[in-house]
Amino acid sequence: MIEEKKSFRTIFWRNGAVVMIDQRFLPREETYNEYRDVEGLAEAIESMVIRGAPAIGVAAAYGVALAAHNSTGDAQQTLDAAQEAGVRLSRTRPTAVNLFWAIERMRKVAQTQRGDVAEIKRRLLEEAERIHAEDLELCRSIGRHGAELVPDGATILTHCNAGALATAGWGTALGVIRSAVEAGKKVRVLADETRPFLQGARLTAWELQRDGFDVTVIPDSAAAHLLSRKEIDLVVVGTDRVAANGDVANKIGTYGVALAAKAAGVPFYVAAPWSTIDLETPTGAQIPIEERPAREVTHVGATRIVPEGVKVRNPAFDVTPNELVTALITDRGVIRPPYTENLRAKA
Amino acid sequence: MIEEKKSFRTIFWRNGAVVMIDQRFLPREETYNEYRDVEGLAEAIESMVIRGAPAIGVAAAYGVALAAHNSTGDAQQTLDAAQEAGVRLSRTRPTAVNLFWAIERMRKVAQTQRGDVAEIKRRLLEEAERIHAEDLELCRSIGRHGAELVPDGATILTHCNAGALATAGWGTALGVIRSAVEAGKKVRVLADETRPFLQGARLTAWELQRDGFDVTVIPDSAAAHLLSRKEIDLVVVGTDRVAANGDVANKIGTYGVALAAKAAGVPFYVAAPWSTIDLETPTGAQIPIEERPAREVTHVGATRIVPEGVKVRNPAFDVTPNELVTALITDRGVIRPPYTENLRAKA
Repeated sequence: MIEEKKSFRTIFWRNGAVVMIDQRFLPREETYNEYRDVEGLAEAIESMVIRGAPAIGVAAAYGVALAAHNSTGDAQQTLDAAQEAGVRLSRTRPTAVNLFWAIERMRKVAQTQRGDVAEIKRRLLEEAERIHAEDLELCRSIGRHGAELVPDGATILTHCNAGALATAGWGTALGVIRSAVEAGKKVRVLADETRPFLQGARLTAWELQRDGFDVTVIPDSAAAHLLSRKEIDLVVVGTDRVAANGDVANKIGTYGVALAAKAAGVPFYVAAPWSTIDLETPTGAQIPIEERPAREVTHVGATRIVPEGVKVRNPAFDVTPNELVTALITDRGVIRPPYTENLRAKA
Repeated sequence: MIEEKKSFRTIFWRNGAVVMIDQRFLPREETYNEYRDVEGLAEAIESMVIRGAPAIGVAAAYGVALAAHNSTGDAQQTLDAAQEAGVRLSRTRPTAVNLFWAIERMRKVAQTQRGDVAEIKRRLLEEAERIHAEDLELCRSIGRHGAELVPDGATILTHCNAGALATAGWGTALGVIRSAVEAGKKVRVLADETRPFLQGARLTAWELQRDGFDVTVIPDSAAAHLLSRKEIDLVVVGTDRVAANGDVANKIGTYGVALAAKAAGVPFYVAAPWSTIDLETPTGAQIPIEERPAREVTHVGATRIVPEGVKVRNPAFDVTPNELVTALITDRGVIRPPYTENLRAKA
């Protein structure tokens, strides 16, 4: 039984279904959707019912378990269904490496299975639940390491949502903030609204308010200004993939925040579980950047904000070069430059 | 008669009223509002029916003329009404210096007037119309100077709206682009959407599409990414006030774009009429930065995007330090660093 000790739950398994809070409709509506087949779950990942690199990994793992659970065939057919689910789920989002990492872990478990269908189903579900439970533990560990970098009384800027909603619970960047507060520090959080999907305005503000934090939303474009005015003491963000040289892919806008933090002499931290670090990708230039549908930019709710017929670009991620990253906060400790050497040493 | 040769008009005087296109409802609705008293006009400036430093200057000048026009008293009462209108209008927006400059020009004309009420009314309206007509000419001149800096085939990034809608017509930053196209160059324009008021998504996209330009809207936070990927050849923006040392106040987000342009080695130009240059303000640190209502951030149309009860910051402008500005494009020519010396030389 996974105990998240929070006022809401991001994702969980219940009676043969994957249940997820629908992040598209927060903060307006708090609804939980139940997914009983892989295709529905894959589409939920694509449409951002759930998002955030670690949470996507957990969802994909449950998706593989779900395919096995639903199988009415023999052992081989059940393993084939799990394999096929992995292929489908790996096509949902290209940037976050945790997705591929979680599917690979599920594949390795499947590979060791033989004749007993019930055993296959049980072992795959156990592995998904282990990935889920581990993610919570890893976030707690990231939080403990990161909390030491947070001065008492700090004003902390974050971009996007790297919180309980982006993970199995607790969060990576917000996990650092949660752990700092748990350790007795007082902090104020500034949340970039994070256009176009508004993860900051809608999700970070909602989860921090829900849990009693002091949170203020700002337009993305105000971050550089407030950094230059010395109103921010540190920046902490999550990441979808860290390359072997320490380049960081994260939600579009992160790179601009990092440039402004550097210009202001403010530390810029990136918090992530080790599964987000991809030593097989040499630099940020090799990380695929997802382009998402124009409608996320042209409309907010039902309101069209871009004139009909005008083109739109919607890159969902950007790459922050390693020289702008003060430190990586991982479950294996705080890692500082030079990243190529120091990441390899912890691998 | 002021002839703007465009498919829409930003502001004009008609039969004792100031008429303005309502920029709050573009691109959804193209409506023209008529203002017959100073208080209504002042509130229209405050609520951003009209915005953009040069356009606000023109509106304020017409507002002073309107006060005189509406006076039923003697010469002194008419001059007092004009004076009072200037005081009220100068309280509408603190950052753009053109507002104060235009009111001051009107005050100087009023100061030379004596006994004839009809003459006072006529002279003040003439001066407002002169400011209006001059602004068009200045934009044309800015455009001619700036067009030489635009390579054929360039992709140009702009932030906010420094277009026909922000001026008497033609535009400053967009005036440069319009003049480059008039000179036979092919260009593509990327428009930052410019949260929270969405001047880029709503206004720049609308006016450029209306006039047949190739325009693409991007989230503000995508600008740094696209600059880093070498997809942008130059940046041109407007400004609300340039300090004596060349520091530039402009729409929130401009500073971040300038940082990213510098990091990418892309020229960052600022286009403005000379009236925007404020030699009495030594540096950007002395420029007042307006904070606007939270609702601009919390809502888009009727849709609430920030949870109820969460705080918001909404600074409307930021300051780009002079070292990030490649050149100022003015009606007096292109001005390059060192700005303190080179601005003084053109004064």
